[in-house]
Amino acid sequence: MKTLNDIFEHTLQDVYYAENAILKALPKVIEEAGNAGLKEALKEHLSETKTQVATLKKVFKSIGAEAKGVKCDAIDGLIKECEGVMDEAKGAAARNAGIIGCCQAIEHYEIARYGTLREWAKALGHEDAHQMLGSILDQEKAADHKLTGLAVESVNKAA
Amino acid sequence: MKTLNDIFEHTLQDVYYAENAILKALPKVIEEAGNAGLKEALKEHLSETKTQVATLKKVFKSIGAEAKGVKCDAIDGLIKECEGVMDEAKGAAARNAGIIGCCQAIEHYEIARYGTLREWAKALGHEDAHQMLGSILDQEKAADHKLTGLAVESVNKAA
Repeated sequence: MKTLNDIFEHTLQDVYYAENAILKALPKVIEEAGNAGLKEALKEHLSETKTQVATLKKVFKSIGAEAKGVKCDAIDGLIKECEGVMDEAKGAAARNAGIIGCCQAIEHYEIARYGTLREWAKALGHEDAHQMLGSILDQEKAADHKLTGLAVESVNKAA
Repeated sequence: MKTLNDIFEHTLQDVYYAENAILKALPKVIEEAGNAGLKEALKEHLSETKTQVATLKKVFKSIGAEAKGVKCDAIDGLIKECEGVMDEAKGAAARNAGIIGCCQAIEHYEIARYGTLREWAKALGHEDAHQMLGSILDQEKAADHKLTGLAVESVNKAA
């Protein structure tokens, strides 16, 4: 990795791996969630994540690169943390608060990465990629915002 | 972990471990950074992190708990990712952009965790903890904002 374009492509592979890892992990989180609003929000995010994977494929195509993932230690650690909380708080009312906290940590990882990727796409003159990455970033921010609302307005009070 | 207070304490131990891991990791990042503004920003963040560890000790004390860390897979993964980028882009101008990207992913992990902890402290009636965690959260947001400015205004253009 010597040029900004190398790092851009590598980080794109990194988020591609991350989104696919999230796709695999989310169904169990949805199953463990014990709050109707939270379950609904996570289901919606699962559906959004599928669309984001499709959009990432278009981003790869727009820069003439093959869509592929590269092992991302960060998302593996974040998902492992979420699974740990679900195991340790299994069945307790407070688990919903714990699940939201872990999901927001994952959302923030994505917000950081897409924010960076979007700016790199701009600096590299990848206009289409810049626009597509910006639209995913906006979705991740909205998903995070929704989870904050759920936590503050109902889940934390019931925990 | 059955109650919100259990999860609150566990997550506090998690960020305490994370801040100490960052304290250990940052000197190498500062050494590898090849941009004066970035080096300066990271040095300042190292100093802030030391203060944050001291503040976290006060948070533990304010809730009558012992200050201790618990292994946090998320921060371990995030730091490993940063070290990987530094190794692979070693010496290249683009490494500075890569370093900023990884540091912002770490900042966002902290922003997510302190945002959650602050709200949990409020829900639990831990007023002092709520205030202290809010002040750390503000510092993390400011550090992230500073890195965005550095990336967009100079580092990405030079990469």
